[in-house]
Amino acid sequence: MELWYTEKQTKSFGITAKIKNTLHSEQTEFQKLDMIETEEFGNMLVLDGMVMTTEKDEFVYHEMVAHVPLFTHPNPENVLVVGGGDGGVIREVLKHPSVKKATLVEIDGKVIEYSKKYLPSIAGELDNARVEVKVGDGFMHIAQSENEYDVIMVDSTEPVGPAVNLFSKGFYAGISKALKEDGIFVAQTDNPWFKADLISQVSRDVKEIFPVTRLYIANIPTYPSGMWTFTMGSKKHDPLEVSEERFHEIDTKYYTKELHKAAFVLPRFVGDLVK
Amino acid sequence: MELWYTEKQTKSFGITAKIKNTLHSEQTEFQKLDMIETEEFGNMLVLDGMVMTTEKDEFVYHEMVAHVPLFTHPNPENVLVVGGGDGGVIREVLKHPSVKKATLVEIDGKVIEYSKKYLPSIAGELDNARVEVKVGDGFMHIAQSENEYDVIMVDSTEPVGPAVNLFSKGFYAGISKALKEDGIFVAQTDNPWFKADLISQVSRDVKEIFPVTRLYIANIPTYPSGMWTFTMGSKKHDPLEVSEERFHEIDTKYYTKELHKAAFVLPRFVGDLVK
Repeated sequence: MELWYTEKQTKSFGITAKIKNTLHSEQTEFQKLDMIETEEFGNMLVLDGMVMTTEKDEFVYHEMVAHVPLFTHPNPENVLVVGGGDGGVIREVLKHPSVKKATLVEIDGKVIEYSKKYLPSIAGELDNARVEVKVGDGFMHIAQSENEYDVIMVDSTEPVGPAVNLFSKGFYAGISKALKEDGIFVAQTDNPWFKADLISQVSRDVKEIFPVTRLYIANIPTYPSGMWTFTMGSKKHDPLEVSEERFHEIDTKYYTKELHKAAFVLPRFVGDLVK
Repeated sequence: MELWYTEKQTKSFGITAKIKNTLHSEQTEFQKLDMIETEEFGNMLVLDGMVMTTEKDEFVYHEMVAHVPLFTHPNPENVLVVGGGDGGVIREVLKHPSVKKATLVEIDGKVIEYSKKYLPSIAGELDNARVEVKVGDGFMHIAQSENEYDVIMVDSTEPVGPAVNLFSKGFYAGISKALKEDGIFVAQTDNPWFKADLISQVSRDVKEIFPVTRLYIANIPTYPSGMWTFTMGSKKHDPLEVSEERFHEIDTKYYTKELHKAAFVLPRFVGDLVK
C-alpha cells in the first residue's frame, strides 16, 4: 500500500508526497501537529495541514529569515524569534558571533518537543547557552517589550489559527516599540501567486510604521507556488546598502552576500504588489 | 464528483490540480497530449504526463527564455525557437522590434494545433507575418543550419521522449555552428532540487563549446520545485555586461531589466552545480 500526504495549498491546487511513515500525530492545545517521514523531503513537520518545514529544503527558509536582517544590522546582539519552534531560525542566528542572546517565543511547546525528537538537524541548537526558549504568546511578549531587541524575526504559520494576530498592524507597532532605535524585523509573508492581497496589505501596514520597508523572495519547493516572500521593516538600516565589509564568511547552502541584494530584485508582478 | 490532475514530478513528490474539464486527449505520433481546464491555472497543456504550460503562469517561462538572450544580443534580427509549439516564446520574441524573422521548428504539429485552439493568449502570434512555423525535427534543422541565427532558444520538454537529443553535446555543437559569430543560445535545463546532475552535465558540455556559459533561474509554480533553470551559451556577449541603453521598454509581467541581472545570482547550492 502506498500512502501519500496531499496538501491543498489553495482550494484547487496542492502538493503530494509519498510517505514512509507517520512519526507522530496529535491535536495540541493550539493546532493539529503531524510529523511524517517522506521519501523525497525526509522528515516533515505539518501544522494544521500545512507543511512548516522539511529536512531537505528547510535551509532556504531558515537562512533567508535569519541572515538578511542580521547582515543588514551593523551589530546584532539581542535577537528575538517569534514562533519558529522547530529551531531552524535559531540555528542560523547563532552563526553570527555578534549575537549574545537569542530568545525564542513559541506558543506551542509540542512543536519544540517533537522537533527536537524528529528534526534534530534543525532543532539541535535550541539548547545552546546563548538561547532562551520561552513557551508563550509571541504577541503578548512583544506587547511587553520595549527598546530591547536589535533584530526580531517572525517565523509564524499562515494567518489562520494561532498566528492570526501576527499579521496585524497592532503587532507591527508593537514590534517597533520592542526594537531598539535602529532595530530591524522580518516576517514571512506567504506567496505572491495565491496570496497577493496579503502581501500588499502587510507592506502597506509596515510602511506606515517603518521608514525602510522592503520585500524579498526565496524558492521553497514545499511551500505554495515555490516562491516565498519576506517583508522587512527597518528603523534605519537599508538591506540594499550593506557595505562589503559587513559580510563575514558563513556556512550556508542558499544565502550568499550576492543573493542578499539580488533577493530584493522582484519579478514585475511581485514588485507591483508593494508599490 | 471532483476530478484532479496529479503529476508525479519525482517518484515520490508531485502536484495536484482540480480539473473543470478535459478539453482534449490523444496519443500523437510523438507523445501523449492532454489539454485540461484547471480551476487554479486555467487551461493547461500536458505532454507525456508533464505540465508544459498553463494560462496563469506561462508568462514567467516565456518571458525569461526570450528576453534574457534578446537583450543580451545587441541587435537580434534572425531568431530560431526549437520546440515551443505553444507559441509563447514566439509571442515574446516579437516584442523586440529588431527581430525581422522568427522561425519555430516544432516536431509535433498537434501541439501547435491544440495550442491555437485552447491557448489562444499564448499561441496567438504564431500567424504573425514575421514568423515562419516549420513542423519538423529541431535537431535536424540545427544540423543543417550554418552561421544563420543571432539567437536560438531551445524550448523543449524534459530529456525523455522526443527531446532526448536536445540535451546532448552534439546538439550544442550544432547550435554553435548554426549561430552567427556573436550568437547566443538558451535552453531550459530543469530544476536544481531534483535534477542537479542534469544541470551540471549541461553546463560542462556547453562550457566546452561556448566561451560565455551562464545559468539563470525563475520561479514557475507548476514546474517541479518551483525553481527553473536556463543555461545560456554565448559566443561573445555577456548577459551580465549589458549596458543600460540596450534595454528598451517592454510589456512584461515577470522580466525587468533589473531582474535580467539578478536572475543570474544563484543560491549557493545552485551555483555549486555549475562551478
